Amino acid sequence: MSASERHVIGVDYGTLSGRAVVVRVSDGAELASATLDYPHAVMDTTLAASGATLPPEWALQVPADYVAVLRTAVPEAVAKAGIDPSSVIGIGTDFTASTPLPVLADGTPLNELPEYETNPHAYVKLWKHHAAQGQADRINELAAARGEAWLPRYGGLISSEWEFAKGLQLLEEAPELYERMDHWVEAADWIVWQLTGSYVRNACTAGYKGIWQDGEYPSREFLGALNPAFAGFADDKVAHEIGQLGDAAGTLSAQAAAWTGLPEGIAVAVGNVDAHVTAPAAQAVEPGQMLAIMGTSTCHVMNSDVLAEVPGMCGVVDGGIVSGLYGYEAGQSGVGDIFAWYVKNQVPASHHEAADAAGKSIHQYLTDLAAEHPVGAHGLVALDWHSGNRSVLVDHELSGVVVGATLTTRPEEVYRALLEATAFGTRKIVETFNASGVPVTEFVVAGGLLKNAFLMQTYSDILRMPISTIASEQGPALGSAIHAAVAAGAYPDVRAAGAAMGKVTRDAYTPNEAAADAYDELYADYELLHDYFGRGANDVMKRLKRRRREALA
Amino acid sequence: MSASERHVIGVDYGTLSGRAVVVRVSDGAELASATLDYPHAVMDTTLAASGATLPPEWALQVPADYVAVLRTAVPEAVAKAGIDPSSVIGIGTDFTASTPLPVLADGTPLNELPEYETNPHAYVKLWKHHAAQGQADRINELAAARGEAWLPRYGGLISSEWEFAKGLQLLEEAPELYERMDHWVEAADWIVWQLTGSYVRNACTAGYKGIWQDGEYPSREFLGALNPAFAGFADDKVAHEIGQLGDAAGTLSAQAAAWTGLPEGIAVAVGNVDAHVTAPAAQAVEPGQMLAIMGTSTCHVMNSDVLAEVPGMCGVVDGGIVSGLYGYEAGQSGVGDIFAWYVKNQVPASHHEAADAAGKSIHQYLTDLAAEHPVGAHGLVALDWHSGNRSVLVDHELSGVVVGATLTTRPEEVYRALLEATAFGTRKIVETFNASGVPVTEFVVAGGLLKNAFLMQTYSDILRMPISTIASEQGPALGSAIHAAVAAGAYPDVRAAGAAMGKVTRDAYTPNEAAADAYDELYADYELLHDYFGRGANDVMKRLKRRRREALA
Repeated sequence: MSASERHVIGVDYGTLSGRAVVVRVSDGAELASATLDYPHAVMDTTLAASGATLPPEWALQVPADYVAVLRTAVPEAVAKAGIDPSSVIGIGTDFTASTPLPVLADGTPLNELPEYETNPHAYVKLWKHHAAQGQADRINELAAARGEAWLPRYGGLISSEWEFAKGLQLLEEAPELYERMDHWVEAADWIVWQLTGSYVRNACTAGYKGIWQDGEYPSREFLGALNPAFAGFADDKVAHEIGQLGDAAGTLSAQAAAWTGLPEGIAVAVGNVDAHVTAPAAQAVEPGQMLAIMGTSTCHVMNSDVLAEVPGMCGVVDGGIVSGLYGYEAGQSGVGDIFAWYVKNQVPASHHEAADAAGKSIHQYLTDLAAEHPVGAHGLVALDWHSGNRSVLVDHELSGVVVGATLTTRPEEVYRALLEATAFGTRKIVETFNASGVPVTEFVVAGGLLKNAFLMQTYSDILRMPISTIASEQGPALGSAIHAAVAAGAYPDVRAAGAAMGKVTRDAYTPNEAAADAYDELYADYELLHDYFGRGANDVMKRLKRRRREALA
Repeated sequence: MSASERHVIGVDYGTLSGRAVVVRVSDGAELASATLDYPHAVMDTTLAASGATLPPEWALQVPADYVAVLRTAVPEAVAKAGIDPSSVIGIGTDFTASTPLPVLADGTPLNELPEYETNPHAYVKLWKHHAAQGQADRINELAAARGEAWLPRYGGLISSEWEFAKGLQLLEEAPELYERMDHWVEAADWIVWQLTGSYVRNACTAGYKGIWQDGEYPSREFLGALNPAFAGFADDKVAHEIGQLGDAAGTLSAQAAAWTGLPEGIAVAVGNVDAHVTAPAAQAVEPGQMLAIMGTSTCHVMNSDVLAEVPGMCGVVDGGIVSGLYGYEAGQSGVGDIFAWYVKNQVPASHHEAADAAGKSIHQYLTDLAAEHPVGAHGLVALDWHSGNRSVLVDHELSGVVVGATLTTRPEEVYRALLEATAFGTRKIVETFNASGVPVTEFVVAGGLLKNAFLMQTYSDILRMPISTIASEQGPALGSAIHAAVAAGAYPDVRAAGAAMGKVTRDAYTPNEAAADAYDELYADYELLHDYFGRGANDVMKRLKRRRREALA
């Protein structure tokens, strides 16, 4: 290692842990990493401070756990890397989102006030806190009725996971805390605030999760119509100075320097979201490069130089991925978790035992069995809606379907049909972007599922596109480090830093023409079923869910 | 036992074994039974005599195995019953069908000629021999094109399992054997021939399996158009004296008396089919009493005093169940075998282990779990077409569907949806009979599945009808014994004998009104999917099967 080599730290705040990675500025080499599991993990059944039971659909976190990552994982990673801490020129972070918390003017989380310690509403509402669905429904109904100009920017649906629905829930269920808080801040920005000592709101969460469009939030009239006491929500609780991605939010404070062991005064990058921050790490920031982060669900992010309305997208935000381009986001609500559900609930012991005997994971075993046969040999087609459909139908009342089972259908055949269904769902998204004037010219994959080579080949065949794959196992943390390097001035912008520090295997998979032809036929049947069940011809899925709710009520 | 008590023997020839039952004439009491597994079982992979591999879809049997049942199971049952053989006044038999074999004029099966011992075509073609599908397709196409009057009597489809398709296969694949045989005889009649020494063709198989309608077989013109050498098939190989059900075909020969230990000269009933013979055993022979024999598949038989065309029925035959009434048959191609497929292929180890721990069969365990929740709580609806659909769509290119799966769907919920789907399929059949002028006024169940009380209650709720259940575990053998009693003159006819000797629990299950209301809603969705996938709106299932065949070719 050259004595003059410079380094940056990327910290990725996931759902259950925070991971710090030490990265070389010159080429993006990842020198070491360290992880801290959050001491309180996710509180979704009981509140740790009181032992009280939480209602269904709640999911909370403790903000001090995030600081603990700075105090332990960061110095541990630096020590493992064997670098001189003085060679670190910047730190960047990314976070799950939307994960907001109520704080005082100085950034103190309300749960740290003794009088609120046992109030669940004083804590961080994690992205998967789904108890604000009623508020989200009202937001969507009113916005549609009033024809709010921002609604199409979100594919027509504001999620219950986002800032406004959760904020309205706070107002209506804990008005005292709503009144007391000075800011409803994303954890992505709160952690940067802890690093620098000052609050800067990042453009990414402001746009995708905070309905900040064309420099404005939803109007006082709109918010007041939801609830008169909510009229000032945007102005009073949400609005704040916006920082562009890749800019420095400030410099490392003395306190944060003491926590981390890093030099006081180094650059701290503006906060970011785990999916979006990965784009430069995978060298997928140019217009038309769609990055799919494939895990339990799939998040698609893509830049474009045009602003368009893409049906069913999650959002389009100016500078939402990199400054100066329109960042688009789309998503599939269920991917890896459908496979996990299937393996847990619908695969017999014989297959698990055979997988063990072969020294394979059950997923790999099923995949290998399924891969033995040509396209279409299973005689099946499935819809990948077990967790609803985000893009492009934006309907969480939809559900899964498998058509074509016979008495000879084997477990691995249904498994393959589910793999294929998620690829068909991706093709539907890509085709919708293409048809909306925002063409997808390259498809890049990050996330845990890229290790399944058969799945990747299937995606390539079904999309009829090469698949490029990120060449880092720590995409978000690497992306945060890239942003740190830019914030520190080592590169002129995120695109340049990504080109130097990002890692991708271009065209790791290319379509097999014969398979692609066969999949075209199957996709035609997927589309028929997609539109039949998803676009109102037969609303059986909604009726089934309604009856289920009524029966269990 | 009164010294003057009289007895009859019923022998049920199933797919894998023959069962003899000793029955008291006065009240139908079953005194003892004995079973013989056929020594050659079903030959569906290799021919025992040569070791040669059989083509796919073949299923053969050895006729001598049937005689072995007479020589072993009958005397064993008589001995176990402790009765005086001289108290036996008659013997009756029933058989799987259509299960034809080629024989000489004296009844000798061609496989017993040394020169044909290694020719697969010389053996019995069991009902589930499905290698004559090509011939069946040609029969159906030609009959439809010519508007043959008999075609609607079979719901528009002659099965590959039946006499004419299998006979045409014999002609076209083994013309020498076709030429050599004097009769193409149902095993149901061949076994009676062995008992009496003379050949009588029973009205049941002649009608349901031999296209014998209004006293005629398909014309020479029709048969010759299929294949010129087939023109004389009906006249030369099939046509024979018809015996009515319940009549005596003759008396027990000296040889058969020696085999069985029964008195020479006692009455031998005309042959019969296992499903149809069960109707009097279940006291289900009056017009409107539909008997469902529920096992791996379900066969429905019902008498009526009117002749009507019921869409998708398997057949209507004058005297096909009891002499003097029109016997209707319908069917569901997959019922218990769908449940068995599911349990083998789609249920995780955890459930099998829990079932073992609870000392329950996996079926009972899943059923008990599923029964804990109210109708509709699973949020699912399924189509029961994993083995195709006989009634009412008559389409074996259809396949199974499950709609509504989510990440919280449990194995027992899908299992219940499959149970319900078969009940919906039954309701569709009942409603089709009702709408065709042949109303179903009572629903009676026989067969192995009646032991599942939850399934029976579900059928009652979904049909909105009481369910009566046969009170014998040996319905077909009891039915054969009833026919023996009538043939021996102990009763004036089958209806009277059934009233005295048959056993049924009337209204064993009655509909729960609230459940029935909830199922009405689910059934409406079943019907929508039934018609969408089954009546041409979306032929995706046919395309999936075609692609599967092509991919595996």
